[in-house]
Amino acid sequence: MAIETMTWRPGDAGELPGALDIIDQRLLPAVAERLVLTTVQGTWDAIKTLAVRGAPAIGCASAYGVVVGAQTAFGASTAEAAAAARAAADHLATSRPTAVNLFWALDRMKDTIARAVESCEDGAALCAVLLDEAKAIHQADVETCRQIGKHGAALLPNPARVLTHCNAGGLATAGYGTALGCFYAAKEAGMDISVMACETRPLLQGARLTTYELQQGGVPVTLMSDGMAAFAMQNGKLDAVIVGADRIARNGDAANKIGTYSHAVNAKHHGIPFYVAAPKSTFDLSLASGQEIPIEERAREELSEFNGRQIAPEGVPTWNPAFDVTPAALIAGIITEFGVIQPVTEANVLAVLGEA
Amino acid sequence: MAIETMTWRPGDAGELPGALDIIDQRLLPAVAERLVLTTVQGTWDAIKTLAVRGAPAIGCASAYGVVVGAQTAFGASTAEAAAAARAAADHLATSRPTAVNLFWALDRMKDTIARAVESCEDGAALCAVLLDEAKAIHQADVETCRQIGKHGAALLPNPARVLTHCNAGGLATAGYGTALGCFYAAKEAGMDISVMACETRPLLQGARLTTYELQQGGVPVTLMSDGMAAFAMQNGKLDAVIVGADRIARNGDAANKIGTYSHAVNAKHHGIPFYVAAPKSTFDLSLASGQEIPIEERAREELSEFNGRQIAPEGVPTWNPAFDVTPAALIAGIITEFGVIQPVTEANVLAVLGEA
Repeated sequence: MAIETMTWRPGDAGELPGALDIIDQRLLPAVAERLVLTTVQGTWDAIKTLAVRGAPAIGCASAYGVVVGAQTAFGASTAEAAAAARAAADHLATSRPTAVNLFWALDRMKDTIARAVESCEDGAALCAVLLDEAKAIHQADVETCRQIGKHGAALLPNPARVLTHCNAGGLATAGYGTALGCFYAAKEAGMDISVMACETRPLLQGARLTTYELQQGGVPVTLMSDGMAAFAMQNGKLDAVIVGADRIARNGDAANKIGTYSHAVNAKHHGIPFYVAAPKSTFDLSLASGQEIPIEERAREELSEFNGRQIAPEGVPTWNPAFDVTPAALIAGIITEFGVIQPVTEANVLAVLGEA
Repeated sequence: MAIETMTWRPGDAGELPGALDIIDQRLLPAVAERLVLTTVQGTWDAIKTLAVRGAPAIGCASAYGVVVGAQTAFGASTAEAAAAARAAADHLATSRPTAVNLFWALDRMKDTIARAVESCEDGAALCAVLLDEAKAIHQADVETCRQIGKHGAALLPNPARVLTHCNAGGLATAGYGTALGCFYAAKEAGMDISVMACETRPLLQGARLTTYELQQGGVPVTLMSDGMAAFAMQNGKLDAVIVGADRIARNGDAANKIGTYSHAVNAKHHGIPFYVAAPKSTFDLSLASGQEIPIEERAREELSEFNGRQIAPEGVPTWNPAFDVTPAALIAGIITEFGVIQPVTEANVLAVLGEA
């Protein structure tokens, strides 16, 4: 992963006051422009408008956003900085109401405010504590990705030709990604790894983001449309499939970007192992199976228009589910930071995650 | 099928001299504009630039193009009209070198010229014979579609919810289509038929053409992306799949637009019958199996750009096969104008086509 999805940029006087520096994913791959966020509202806008996206990446960005809020009272009292930080956390929580990592990260920042407010002698000191906490969240995500990558790479043959779908990469995390982390880890381990990336209709995250970051990271990647994956398997062009996940039920059923399930069925038909790579935070152990995972249906325009051009007639209805659910029976293994859940059963999910 | 893909438009003085009138498929679905073709070069351009597309439709359009050529000598001698018609046929043969129906139709027109040149007393008479022949080719295609439609509709339950891919409709034939003909026939028979159309990346024939013509024809249609089909099957939204074909081998292996094979595998997995609808002219009995069907690979820009916008990074390679091959074992039946080949075996292919 050669792209830094986000980083803390020190100011002229030192680490603080500083700024959150992110790559603007809305402009990729045509333009690789960075956004330097020095206000809470700017950070909120970046999350809301998908300049930064992917649940782990949103969590980290929001943690830094709390620091950005606190440092408006950098030269003031501890109480004033704490109030500014809390206000920032409350506002950032309204940016993407469904991203679970957002709330997790903001709660962790609020706990830190509560813990540190008594011991810090001034606003500057509180800002320093909050920046340390944001960096710790960031660093933990980096480490989680590394562990997933290591466990995933160990599953692959050498050479390995792997299919992926959507973007479960460094652009979706603060580290080098989950599914794509496996590819970076394989490359780092000196393996001969190449990737076939599906473009991922309708929003083209595969074409726009996955090919971009793999190209930047020096992993050979070939782009195709989603419907070509089965034909690639039939032609012996693939050894494995690795995708990310948006939510995984207690029994291992995994929701991921629409189109994933079709790849899983085709992988089974062709005798190719289908893996899901995701951190523990993606599991929702309150759900017995994937049937309980709610599937968001998105706007008609994603299918009926492209770049301002009408591509379907007025009045034709669409069906546009954002995710689908792959049953555990089709998944050869779930790659987590704690190891690989294999075979995918409820007992193994709980055992590997340390929840047995 | 409420759209007339092509028709002969009489002139002010009667049927001849007249013009070939087609719908311009390049502008659909945003604009439904008709092209009135009064020159051989105009007809050549319309075929070359995909204003008219689909193998059967191209064949019919080229036959009318020969009439357009002949009538430049409408007031002249039989010999002059015959020369003009032959020149038109030779030129039109260069428009799309791979469309097999084009050569078949032009050969039939040339045979007609050779047969009629002795008996016609002047150019006008020869033009009339040629127009009759073009109309006969057109009418035969209409009848073939009707027979396919009738046989296909008889395979469906009532109500029926059917998946299709790409455009094997009236816009690809002179009649009301092959796969889509089954839906029109079902509707005409009073059945409760509805269709889920895959957009068909990369060229979006499903989104642009299939939804348009089914909407015009009063068949309920819902648009989705190609990767959603498997999830629709998993959710019990589909009773059958019917697609067209570009070439079918002697053993029943069928080449069709890329993405078709993935639907066939998924249909098998979900216990849903997968049918191919195609006329006898689509069969290439010289090929023992689908492995011998050459697969055209198309330009990178179809995947890396859309409507002038770059959607993948510079330098990322693509894999862009235009077709894939579905093995006979995954096909529940091939619907032809002579009946349904079911089960799909070489013996049944030859028996139904009358080639045993």
